[in-house]
Amino acid sequence: MSDLPDSVVFHEHGPREGFQIENQPHPLPRRVALIDAIAAAGVARIQAASFVNPKVVPTMADSDELFAAIPKRPGVRYTALWLNPWGFEQAVQVPQVDLFGSVVLYASNGFSLSNNNCTKQEARGRLQQWTELYDKHDVALEQVYVLSAFGCNFEGEVPIADVMEEIRHVVDLCREQGRALPRIDLDDSMSWAEPHSIRRRIGAVREAYPELEIGLHLHDSRGLGAACVFAALEMGVRHFDSSIGGLGGCPFARLKNKSAAGNICTEDMVHMCHELGIETGIDLDALIEAAQLAEDIVGRPLMGRVMHAGSLAEYRAAAG
Amino acid sequence: MSDLPDSVVFHEHGPREGFQIENQPHPLPRRVALIDAIAAAGVARIQAASFVNPKVVPTMADSDELFAAIPKRPGVRYTALWLNPWGFEQAVQVPQVDLFGSVVLYASNGFSLSNNNCTKQEARGRLQQWTELYDKHDVALEQVYVLSAFGCNFEGEVPIADVMEEIRHVVDLCREQGRALPRIDLDDSMSWAEPHSIRRRIGAVREAYPELEIGLHLHDSRGLGAACVFAALEMGVRHFDSSIGGLGGCPFARLKNKSAAGNICTEDMVHMCHELGIETGIDLDALIEAAQLAEDIVGRPLMGRVMHAGSLAEYRAAAG
Repeated sequence: MSDLPDSVVFHEHGPREGFQIENQPHPLPRRVALIDAIAAAGVARIQAASFVNPKVVPTMADSDELFAAIPKRPGVRYTALWLNPWGFEQAVQVPQVDLFGSVVLYASNGFSLSNNNCTKQEARGRLQQWTELYDKHDVALEQVYVLSAFGCNFEGEVPIADVMEEIRHVVDLCREQGRALPRIDLDDSMSWAEPHSIRRRIGAVREAYPELEIGLHLHDSRGLGAACVFAALEMGVRHFDSSIGGLGGCPFARLKNKSAAGNICTEDMVHMCHELGIETGIDLDALIEAAQLAEDIVGRPLMGRVMHAGSLAEYRAAAG
Repeated sequence: MSDLPDSVVFHEHGPREGFQIENQPHPLPRRVALIDAIAAAGVARIQAASFVNPKVVPTMADSDELFAAIPKRPGVRYTALWLNPWGFEQAVQVPQVDLFGSVVLYASNGFSLSNNNCTKQEARGRLQQWTELYDKHDVALEQVYVLSAFGCNFEGEVPIADVMEEIRHVVDLCREQGRALPRIDLDDSMSWAEPHSIRRRIGAVREAYPELEIGLHLHDSRGLGAACVFAALEMGVRHFDSSIGGLGGCPFARLKNKSAAGNICTEDMVHMCHELGIETGIDLDALIEAAQLAEDIVGRPLMGRVMHAGSLAEYRAAAG
């Protein structure tokens, strides 16, 4: 059962996912300082901001300035989120953005309708349009997200077959076009995943498409994030989206009397990887300091754990 | 690798561990209401309070009144913590206490010295005294904790051999005395555990003493609690101490600029068990309501996750 990878890559989403949900924009220099602290700790992929309608998401209205202000560290990819061609065209105008070509599909029709205002078949149809747009700008399609891959608040259980159908569509299209296969990221924004459903889905994808790279985008709203990541690591998964300090979730800002947590917490998962002997290229203590900076910026306690307890390094050093 | 148990028993520690660390005592009727809400949700073992020096822990000074006020539900064990013979003698005076005979040993000498002011060999010597005291009161020795079983803030790594040495002492003593073997609970109050160290220790105990029942007492200060519980479940472990809402930890009350989280969160772990098909006898939605009551009593956000996001039941029901 255990097929732990030698190394894991975390794509840090906190600066985008975290600040996007804030009611008030935080000062640009502080957000830049956080991004640089994360990069300095060794995180090699950071989603710094999004290019979305500033009327809808005013906290992301200065994304172009933010990207221009980030001191670029060699080897670090500073990526952005866009949700439609307009957003992508905005990002293209900003030379400092690392144009990480990504497309979103849906395993559940209910979530597609709610999130994207189109059926999942229509979302699938847009994959072709995205590849054309990316080609036009010489941007590689690196990643396809399959959303609601573990369950759906609108449709309940999501069968593995529905996940596989979306993946098959991607693989078929790429093969038709002679295009390199993107990584497939299974998404669980609604926190339905548990370790066995992780294992079953990854197993199914591996079985059908052993050549595919798989990643996970997990939120931790029901407390099973670490268990899911552990199960995925034992299946050899090497790519995770995550969020420093768990930034992006807030158990206290209730929506309809419910609240969602952010992505799995980067430094807690880095701690797990290191304890399991998996390399991340990240200095955990430096990342913990970055998480403390994030907490200071948002001005409320973040949900990360090891950022509050500290790493084990000092105890090991003291024990000699 | 997977040997999931059919059912799991949670020993709820929140009412004791949670309220013990509070600066101010909370009203007795509210604490009783919480204990009863937890019992009503189906939790069959609840550590309700401790019998300790009221000068040191003033929030537990009314434990006798508290026990007298709990409406007893059939099948529920309302247990107490004591740290020395004086405390036990206090508990014995209170007829409502379920005298759950427990003894503490240490895998690390440094933690024994710090926590208990004696060497781990001296702690071991006290096991004999405890069994005599329990015998005198007709109390069964049900459980032996092995503290610092995964690592120690004072000594660093703790070898499995040191854990096994303590267990061997217990087994030898019980066999000598013709006494039933107590459950052995591996303790990780300092949050050193990760899923592989869980697996290795449980594997070692199973190998040496297949007849022993094993339990875990885990804290979640470094975010790996769910991963550790999952690894333990797959080793067939059926007994966990836990704390409603994660009560007992507070990331915001920093000690020496560090903070520890409470026990693993009961309702998050119940959620995991149910998703994995493991029975707990607990009504998750009722337990979530109890966790919300706990949050209301302490007056600050608790660290539990599913208590804020809600269970999946309503989504499954709506999806029909």
